[in-house]
Amino acid sequence: MSGRATTAQAPAVHYVPIGIDATGTRTEHDSLGAVQVPADRYWGAQTERSLIHFSIGDDRMPKAVYHAYGLVKKAAAEVNGRAGRLERWRAELIAKVSDEVISGALDAHFPLYVWQTGSGTQSNMNVNEVISNRAIQLLGGTLGSREPIHPNDHVNMGQSSNDTFPTAMHLATVAALTDQLLPSLAPLQQALADKAAAWHDVVKIGRTHLQDAVPLTVGQSWSGYAAQLSAAIDRIKATLPELYGVPIGGTAVGTGLNAPPGFAEEVTAQLARLTGRPFVQTPNRFAAQGGLDAMVAASAGLRAAAVALMKIANDLRWLASGPRAGLNELLLPANEPGSSIMPGKINPTQCEAMVMVCIQIIGEDTAVAFAGSQGNFELNAMRPIITNNVLHGARILADACEKFRVYCIEGAELHRAQIDENVSRSLMLVTALSPEIGYDKASEIAHRADREGTGLRDAALATGYLTAADYDRIVNPRRMAGLSD
Amino acid sequence: MSGRATTAQAPAVHYVPIGIDATGTRTEHDSLGAVQVPADRYWGAQTERSLIHFSIGDDRMPKAVYHAYGLVKKAAAEVNGRAGRLERWRAELIAKVSDEVISGALDAHFPLYVWQTGSGTQSNMNVNEVISNRAIQLLGGTLGSREPIHPNDHVNMGQSSNDTFPTAMHLATVAALTDQLLPSLAPLQQALADKAAAWHDVVKIGRTHLQDAVPLTVGQSWSGYAAQLSAAIDRIKATLPELYGVPIGGTAVGTGLNAPPGFAEEVTAQLARLTGRPFVQTPNRFAAQGGLDAMVAASAGLRAAAVALMKIANDLRWLASGPRAGLNELLLPANEPGSSIMPGKINPTQCEAMVMVCIQIIGEDTAVAFAGSQGNFELNAMRPIITNNVLHGARILADACEKFRVYCIEGAELHRAQIDENVSRSLMLVTALSPEIGYDKASEIAHRADREGTGLRDAALATGYLTAADYDRIVNPRRMAGLSD
Amino acid sequence: MSGRATTAQAPAVHYVPIGIDATGTRTEHDSLGAVQVPADRYWGAQTERSLIHFSIGDDRMPKAVYHAYGLVKKAAAEVNGRAGRLERWRAELIAKVSDEVISGALDAHFPLYVWQTGSGTQSNMNVNEVISNRAIQLLGGTLGSREPIHPNDHVNMGQSSNDTFPTAMHLATVAALTDQLLPSLAPLQQALADKAAAWHDVVKIGRTHLQDAVPLTVGQSWSGYAAQLSAAIDRIKATLPELYGVPIGGTAVGTGLNAPPGFAEEVTAQLARLTGRPFVQTPNRFAAQGGLDAMVAASAGLRAAAVALMKIANDLRWLASGPRAGLNELLLPANEPGSSIMPGKINPTQCEAMVMVCIQIIGEDTAVAFAGSQGNFELNAMRPIITNNVLHGARILADACEKFRVYCIEGAELHRAQIDENVSRSLMLVTALSPEIGYDKASEIAHRADREGTGLRDAALATGYLTAADYDRIVNPRRMAGLSD
Amino acid sequence: MSGRATTAQAPAVHYVPIGIDATGTRTEHDSLGAVQVPADRYWGAQTERSLIHFSIGDDRMPKAVYHAYGLVKKAAAEVNGRAGRLERWRAELIAKVSDEVISGALDAHFPLYVWQTGSGTQSNMNVNEVISNRAIQLLGGTLGSREPIHPNDHVNMGQSSNDTFPTAMHLATVAALTDQLLPSLAPLQQALADKAAAWHDVVKIGRTHLQDAVPLTVGQSWSGYAAQLSAAIDRIKATLPELYGVPIGGTAVGTGLNAPPGFAEEVTAQLARLTGRPFVQTPNRFAAQGGLDAMVAASAGLRAAAVALMKIANDLRWLASGPRAGLNELLLPANEPGSSIMPGKINPTQCEAMVMVCIQIIGEDTAVAFAGSQGNFELNAMRPIITNNVLHGARILADACEKFRVYCIEGAELHRAQIDENVSRSLMLVTALSPEIGYDKASEIAHRADREGTGLRDAALATGYLTAADYDRIVNPRRMAGLSD
Repeated sequence: MSGRATTAQAPAVHYVPIGIDATGTRTEHDSLGAVQVPADRYWGAQTERSLIHFSIGDDRMPKAVYHAYGLVKKAAAEVNGRAGRLERWRAELIAKVSDEVISGALDAHFPLYVWQTGSGTQSNMNVNEVISNRAIQLLGGTLGSREPIHPNDHVNMGQSSNDTFPTAMHLATVAALTDQLLPSLAPLQQALADKAAAWHDVVKIGRTHLQDAVPLTVGQSWSGYAAQLSAAIDRIKATLPELYGVPIGGTAVGTGLNAPPGFAEEVTAQLARLTGRPFVQTPNRFAAQGGLDAMVAASAGLRAAAVALMKIANDLRWLASGPRAGLNELLLPANEPGSSIMPGKINPTQCEAMVMVCIQIIGEDTAVAFAGSQGNFELNAMRPIITNNVLHGARILADACEKFRVYCIEGAELHRAQIDENVSRSLMLVTALSPEIGYDKASEIAHRADREGTGLRDAALATGYLTAADYDRIVNPRRMAGLSD
Repeated sequence: MSGRATTAQAPAVHYVPIGIDATGTRTEHDSLGAVQVPADRYWGAQTERSLIHFSIGDDRMPKAVYHAYGLVKKAAAEVNGRAGRLERWRAELIAKVSDEVISGALDAHFPLYVWQTGSGTQSNMNVNEVISNRAIQLLGGTLGSREPIHPNDHVNMGQSSNDTFPTAMHLATVAALTDQLLPSLAPLQQALADKAAAWHDVVKIGRTHLQDAVPLTVGQSWSGYAAQLSAAIDRIKATLPELYGVPIGGTAVGTGLNAPPGFAEEVTAQLARLTGRPFVQTPNRFAAQGGLDAMVAASAGLRAAAVALMKIANDLRWLASGPRAGLNELLLPANEPGSSIMPGKINPTQCEAMVMVCIQIIGEDTAVAFAGSQGNFELNAMRPIITNNVLHGARILADACEKFRVYCIEGAELHRAQIDENVSRSLMLVTALSPEIGYDKASEIAHRADREGTGLRDAALATGYLTAADYDRIVNPRRMAGLSD
Repeated sequence: MSGRATTAQAPAVHYVPIGIDATGTRTEHDSLGAVQVPADRYWGAQTERSLIHFSIGDDRMPKAVYHAYGLVKKAAAEVNGRAGRLERWRAELIAKVSDEVISGALDAHFPLYVWQTGSGTQSNMNVNEVISNRAIQLLGGTLGSREPIHPNDHVNMGQSSNDTFPTAMHLATVAALTDQLLPSLAPLQQALADKAAAWHDVVKIGRTHLQDAVPLTVGQSWSGYAAQLSAAIDRIKATLPELYGVPIGGTAVGTGLNAPPGFAEEVTAQLARLTGRPFVQTPNRFAAQGGLDAMVAASAGLRAAAVALMKIANDLRWLASGPRAGLNELLLPANEPGSSIMPGKINPTQCEAMVMVCIQIIGEDTAVAFAGSQGNFELNAMRPIITNNVLHGARILADACEKFRVYCIEGAELHRAQIDENVSRSLMLVTALSPEIGYDKASEIAHRADREGTGLRDAALATGYLTAADYDRIVNPRRMAGLSD
Repeated sequence: MSGRATTAQAPAVHYVPIGIDATGTRTEHDSLGAVQVPADRYWGAQTERSLIHFSIGDDRMPKAVYHAYGLVKKAAAEVNGRAGRLERWRAELIAKVSDEVISGALDAHFPLYVWQTGSGTQSNMNVNEVISNRAIQLLGGTLGSREPIHPNDHVNMGQSSNDTFPTAMHLATVAALTDQLLPSLAPLQQALADKAAAWHDVVKIGRTHLQDAVPLTVGQSWSGYAAQLSAAIDRIKATLPELYGVPIGGTAVGTGLNAPPGFAEEVTAQLARLTGRPFVQTPNRFAAQGGLDAMVAASAGLRAAAVALMKIANDLRWLASGPRAGLNELLLPANEPGSSIMPGKINPTQCEAMVMVCIQIIGEDTAVAFAGSQGNFELNAMRPIITNNVLHGARILADACEKFRVYCIEGAELHRAQIDENVSRSLMLVTALSPEIGYDKASEIAHRADREGTGLRDAALATGYLTAADYDRIVNPRRMAGLSD
């Protein structure tokens, strides 16, 4: 009574390079009937249907999702093969082709758009179809026959899009955070810390409300940037444990229907082995398939970094403002001419690019949170938008951090003359007098200097509230910034 | 067979001041049974149920919604009375009490929270119950008896929350925009335009990318602020026509069930008369009750103003930065001491308050758009959140604009010495040379001056690309800014 | 004393197909020095610098921006040529190459990323460089020599990125709205209106708060959808007049420095002629270059459509829910198999794609508003992010509307048996009794039917409040929905 | 040379109840001059200035901020007193009055608006002034004299708004999360878990894409809700450690100027003692004063809960939809009449209130992230907006969770007849056949049953693909949902 193809003997696998030497179209079938697909592509009927119905914009499902899917297909095939549910040759062949998927060698065969079915089923079927046809090719069979490797019965065995897609989302997101973003954030954090160390004893005027305040060192200020990024890195890392939890084995609605006992645990363990990362079964598959809260949390992690980086990038471009009519305390590398009309103009373009990237991430994070709230019952059907935004955010933030470090931070220099002058002219050094003469008299001195346009020392001595010797002892910018003399 | 109370003869109305001289509780009824309510309040069972079930935070439905609801109840009673559906004395009494609602005199009897039923039914019933009991009081009847003025059968006659609440939303929003926001934006726009006029011939250095650019006048810069606000005002005004369309008469689902023929048009016309504003029937009541798109558009109008004002407020606080280590081109009024620790510090606090208000409006606008998308079938059950955010935004923006004008803009002064110095030191005056000697040679001059820290004129002459006479003729900041010499 | 190349006699132009037959790299120069660029590309030093410094993600500046820039360059060259500022042969050659830019034939030579300088200067210089080199090629000159067509002095004559980029933004956005989005929204609106007409007399149960309400017709409900889209279309159209205002001629800071008298007006008029669209000078160039408020308003227009479409798409997928355990009143086209594991499953995937597109637009609109608020002084340096999001939103919304119409709306059918059954079982038909017997007795009947699980008629008659004849006369769903019997 | 008042001997403190028996106004001074304040209020000149300049809307700085500030003032006074910097009697008196602040007894004297200076200085000065005057009152002194307890020199000793305000923010936020939100979320989570346990063996039809899917138990579905909330609770708890880090002791710019050695550590330790919570010095004060990243992270925690709760609330109102024309599987408590026009209507109002609260939190979180990014140099001057939104979100979410639990979850019941019927009619039970007969044949059966409107069993047997005995063995909803028979 089984409808599944079984093959008594393992057929021979002949390695053929990737590619189909054919032109025109090929007929493929699915449960709704026949579809013509490009003859030189591995995909089948459902992929083609999706291409027809969902060619919306230029946004394609990120390739990282397919690479992750390759891991899922491989792990499932291996587990099914070991258990004897899938003939060993079928399991090995699926695993072999999955390796091609994982490597990116089949990327050209995953053309689907982001704006498709909310479950990602079409991308799952794209993978199933491509693996099926590529395996058939390696066996010398007929493309589109779904024999002897069927996209649903064999490649998708024990699986549903509903458990595999969020599993692939987590795999891809962990990779993006671990392999792209954190390795880009960490050296940026270090570069900021290095600058903080290098400039630890340069006294500058502080600014609060954009107004002159009491002095601190440039190093202290930059140590704040480094600390903000350290905390942001920690927040991103803190989202990983939830992402390590995957619902594979839950199949259609989380119950594991059609997945045999032990399948969930074994495939999860196999994914951990294949990736070298501590993937585990999610604590609750109904939550993990009906919601996408771990992805929303990952997006919040990206946003946390964006919020900090935006402050840093804004500070730098303001400090570098000028060169004659700005704050002019920082010299950023001159990477390119700044203006098509103003000769010699240099702009803080790396800061601007960073600010824009940060705003984009904040906007896309809003979309992620919104989409994350729109689950219904056993499925959150907003997976593609969430996946795409999180992977996009991780990618542009990683790249922006690297460019920002290399082309802005590392070559930044201080304009020490201006820094010194700003300190020497500041009226807020008056604050040091406050514990000695009280806030009210100190205020009087500051207002007098401001009104009369004089230096603070002159104004202070004119009041007679303290002697020149006292003034010089107390008003010491280095000591005010916490340095020894 | 009718269950409605009819009274052959009009009972006498005795004016009693607002207030119930009672303590403890009173029993009120609704279709779910009896409820105890505070004896000194006019509200009935459904209001009390809402108070019990929805005491969430401190956010109360804005009183403006009730004032608008008073207009709806009055208009409906008058139309029903004229048509004879409601005995004339009932109609007149409901209209009379509605006037008390409109005036705000009954505000203390509208205690409900924002976070209630999504249709606003509980606030509608609150109005119905209060009018019913206040009318009964004026007739010397028994509070809570719902006789002879029934909250549903008489006060709500021909109405549903589903058509009256969005009608009240539009009435209240039009009032907020027309009576609060626009009258606050317009003088702010004028104040900016006045400054632009006053400073029309003060040449200052322009800044692009925060970097020194070519000169313009302070007046030109401020004319840009005024123009931004003019356009923002126009955008807000452009949202009014949609708000003038109201779905009154649609009753439960837009069909007008239980509202007699002509009711929709007549009540709408009456609302126009009562308010002096051109309210009309919405083009499609199913759209107006199933969606709240006109409110989302109104929120976008608020946001447009916020986006412009944030730019303006940021510019001003940056221009006022200093006084010694900032741009220092603008002097804002010193309204209050700026620091608890730094004597004499003055901060651009009006700008900061404005920026925060603008960010709040942008955030609340996101909530409005989100909520606006969440309608289902014949009702968007996100009315309270949308109403509250739009009215809140209009209110804080109106107040912030008034404070910003009075305490920041009108007293702002230029720091002319600094402005002049910034112009004279700028290297970007080199741009004027470009049409004469070409971009490449002009760049060479600017880079030379920057590298050598000299003035532009010295660097230009040192290159030999032009004579001193030519330089002085061409590099003229006033003319570069479009002024005659 | 001029540094500009002049050529006494017009050199011959030999048409050469687009393309550079060279390998390796070519040396290009700008004011910062020499750069190696790919020998087979037309771009120059500044483009290459941007590629090096800003390879962030995969987001490229939309090609539509370059096509619009082609129009700007052509119009400026023509105006400069007519005025004699630019030799006629130079003007004609620049215009000729600009036509290649406009047509998209040079798209491969515009490789820059979105995340670049915030003014878009690098994309402006990319255009200038490509036109320069392509023109030089047509003259048989030396690529990279900047002779005799210089990217700044000739192609950019009288222009700055600061006025041309926002001009190009507006040109591109108007085209996207007018040529892509509105032509996609209009037929969708018509398709919804057609369904409303086709189903004008099908009575269905209304739903408010997701709960059964009084009946209306399917046509009424869909007329609401059509009306929502009509209003959304009007809102989008209302953003066009602001977009028609362009700051061309403002050059670096809005004053028009280095642009000759009349240049602004003439180039604007030429743009209007070239596009057939009513472009005019913006009312205030300082506002248009320091802010990007017209783009923020355009984004709000997109969002308005997204908010309405999300409601519509959600309604449809809920009405189509089932087929056995849902509302099941609507039959959407079965475009593809819905599940990799559940055979025979069909899902409302077009609705899901539409919902995701709408959420994305709302999220990107948040980024646009944020970026719109971040201008400083004479420049809003957030142009690339705003341009990219608005053009992206217009594009995906246009495509999604077309797919939604063709693959979801046009083939939708009613499940009339279910619709009829839902009407007949509803308890909310009781509402029709309310004007006759009063709200309280009508409530009693509804609660009784609900409690006893009976039909409404049985419960009504059991109360004795009215006769069977009265019931049958009053409770008539067709008339309740406003149809004649 | 000191301007500070010293008093040789401790004056006598006479306890006077809170309140000033005076009418009219009193003259108060600050460094800008004299101001009239209401004679019956403790506040001084700077508070009054803020009231004049910042009466924007009705949003007042949350009282929780002042209560937290009381702790800061008390801790600082105690440390200053112990060190001898402040005479012991002064320290004790400030501590004593601080206790009144902490208790809320002085709430009426903290009138300031949210939209004020971005540093919160005015609220800090409000506290300083109130404590000063209240202390003076207890000493029998002259209100407004600032003698012998000066608002700056004594109450604010060693402090700045710049370190105390973020310290108070963290204190207040920790209290809101720990005392309000988590104690409300935990029992809601438990209530959901209880329902999951109670309904662990009720088989229901699953729904993915809103379409019928394979069965699961009601308990499984609700266990998903409970798991989502558990994870949300964990995410909120994970934000506490960062909030425990406070910058007290950093004073004006983070350097600790005017705060003696050890002050930071001692005050922090004292705050930990006073609150019983593990407050520590922030790892980097420049980060904690220049940014507000821990607050942005706290807001993301709120949002995480909102995203999960919105899904849950939406599920419940959909499951309760009907009663006749909806899914009708869940019976929510009937808390109030649902309609002013439709008798007997009951609506899922608790779910609607929860959804609105969640959307509000998502919108306000967007404002928090935006504001969090807008720091400049040594200060993020967006503190009031961030504080207000985070405390507001925690409050409404806490209250909404409590109401939702008590008035919606705990009384929810299943409509078992409908649940059973929905299972029995489902076509997706066909999925169980797939491993036996293959996906393609299973699809054929499902499509046949759908097309012919028959039951699945009939359609299956009609195909002849399996016997009735096999069908009955395989298609067993209980087992499909993972239950034993």
